[in-house]
Amino acid sequence: MKHSTHWARWCGLVAGAILLGTSVPLRAQSNPLPSWNNGAAKAAIIEFVEATTATDSPGFVPVAERIATFDNDGTLWVEQPMYTQLVYILAQVPALVASNPALAGEEPFKTVLSGDREAMGKLGTADLLKLAMATLEGITVDEFRASVAAWFASAKDPRWKRPYTDLAYQPMLELLRYLRANGYKTYIVTGGGQDFVRVISERVYGIPPEQVMGSLGTTAYGYDAQGNPVLTKEPKLLFIDDGPGKAEGIHLMIGRRPHLAFGNSGGDRDMLEYTGAGGGARLSLLLLHDDAKREYAYGPARGLPDSKIGHFTAALDSEAAARGWTVVSMKQDWKRIFTFE
Amino acid sequence: MKHSTHWARWCGLVAGAILLGTSVPLRAQSNPLPSWNNGAAKAAIIEFVEATTATDSPGFVPVAERIATFDNDGTLWVEQPMYTQLVYILAQVPALVASNPALAGEEPFKTVLSGDREAMGKLGTADLLKLAMATLEGITVDEFRASVAAWFASAKDPRWKRPYTDLAYQPMLELLRYLRANGYKTYIVTGGGQDFVRVISERVYGIPPEQVMGSLGTTAYGYDAQGNPVLTKEPKLLFIDDGPGKAEGIHLMIGRRPHLAFGNSGGDRDMLEYTGAGGGARLSLLLLHDDAKREYAYGPARGLPDSKIGHFTAALDSEAAARGWTVVSMKQDWKRIFTFE
Repeated sequence: MKHSTHWARWCGLVAGAILLGTSVPLRAQSNPLPSWNNGAAKAAIIEFVEATTATDSPGFVPVAERIATFDNDGTLWVEQPMYTQLVYILAQVPALVASNPALAGEEPFKTVLSGDREAMGKLGTADLLKLAMATLEGITVDEFRASVAAWFASAKDPRWKRPYTDLAYQPMLELLRYLRANGYKTYIVTGGGQDFVRVISERVYGIPPEQVMGSLGTTAYGYDAQGNPVLTKEPKLLFIDDGPGKAEGIHLMIGRRPHLAFGNSGGDRDMLEYTGAGGGARLSLLLLHDDAKREYAYGPARGLPDSKIGHFTAALDSEAAARGWTVVSMKQDWKRIFTFE
Repeated sequence: MKHSTHWARWCGLVAGAILLGTSVPLRAQSNPLPSWNNGAAKAAIIEFVEATTATDSPGFVPVAERIATFDNDGTLWVEQPMYTQLVYILAQVPALVASNPALAGEEPFKTVLSGDREAMGKLGTADLLKLAMATLEGITVDEFRASVAAWFASAKDPRWKRPYTDLAYQPMLELLRYLRANGYKTYIVTGGGQDFVRVISERVYGIPPEQVMGSLGTTAYGYDAQGNPVLTKEPKLLFIDDGPGKAEGIHLMIGRRPHLAFGNSGGDRDMLEYTGAGGGARLSLLLLHDDAKREYAYGPARGLPDSKIGHFTAALDSEAAARGWTVVSMKQDWKRIFTFE
């Protein structure tokens, strides 16, 4: 039968590919990145994938070494006007103060409770860290997961009036799938909380929890009142996965240098540099948010307004040009931003 | 043709299995554990694998959640008379002192240089940690990898006169393969150094570096004299992956509770407890070294001599019985210990 012949051929191909230590070649795939406009960025991605997966290519990379790392906030999903995790943390404050009323008179809790958006926007890193740690104190990893999942199930972004998980970028979802179909193991390497991102990574990005590296607090192994073993989150930072920490975190979590890395800000610079310096075929990419109409426009590179979040500077832009990193323009390179469009 | 029909059927099966979110069923495999004697331990393993992979089983576990974690020293390979990593560290001391002669008069370097085995056997944890940190100071992760690989290529165990990597247990290699063939992701969770074990994990165990969790030092991202980005190892512990740290380390590295865990000492107790308490089909195993003739005999459970290394106590043995953990007797359950036999 036609059907089984087709299967046999396809499977022979798969088996051959496995034996050769490569993945199923998808070069013949008609259009693996339908939401990307034809242009330099899309061409660079496809060229990279072909160069690293064709067995006769000088840039061929064995499947085991096909590692691709992605920043999350501002690279895989929207990070404006506030990191999603921060929205979650702020939402926890009322319950936190209810169970510990003394906090109501303490900063930064007082500012958050005031609801004054402008004052909240001025909170510094130390304030935000204090809030983050307060929301973790004494809860188990399972309770944290349940709390985050419940929040994602009901919270909505004020601009699009949709769940935050809908704000993943459709072109990036296609890129993740395209890389995986070509034997790449896709990782998230985020400055955000590892346990926070893990709650949604599989469902939204197809990335399992063990492929999420993020900023980490310590946990403590112990027992609940019934004597069942539990892991409790402690309000103590163990590792900050940002800037040089992203290269260090990749070593900690993966132990191999990525062949592709994708970021959008100064916090991703070291990851892109580390990736690009690996020799052979490597691809470092930066997403430029230059589309105020369909998403947001901020840099401050290329005359775009500055933003406390993100921070794609002119210096980063120059470095990208000097090192051959690919700058992806949301406005020019993406046909479509969100899946729901 | 017979051949392609066979392929088509096999591939249909694979495709069906993938669609069902399960792996290729290997229940029909004639004897997946040839170096294991028939007995309670082997039966428990096969029963567990069948219970977690048969789609009609109440204990069925989706492929994504099939995580199995293994201690390394004394579980996957020999740990007597000294941890392999410690042998490596001691071997580095002469070169270390040559480049910094002041160390020759300092403890514990002085004792190591004396070659007095008895005195070396009395070095405490703080001494050993000092030695370990000294061997790491200022070297890049690539230099460390090269140094460890070079040492493994030439060093030989004094008893078997073979490379240390030959001292992996054949029955455990079979178990790792059997689990992977049934969709399990196999991890090493070792109290030893993560970067040390990663050097040989793929070659010896088929476990890639990203599936090795171990004790961790910090690294620093920076630049060499030519301006190339490098990760340098720092003599600073970040995480000790032992005892309760093994459960915490599993959360850090994997973010899922294992369904199977295998250890051999008190340092693995919490990992086994955490695994066993997960609900559904779980298997916790302990290897008892009761074979002085073919390997070593030490406990001190069951009247075996005590050992500074390992430490399988009578209390651990009782706990195993009470919690239904499977104790694997090297003498009774293993037909063969090493691949080279």
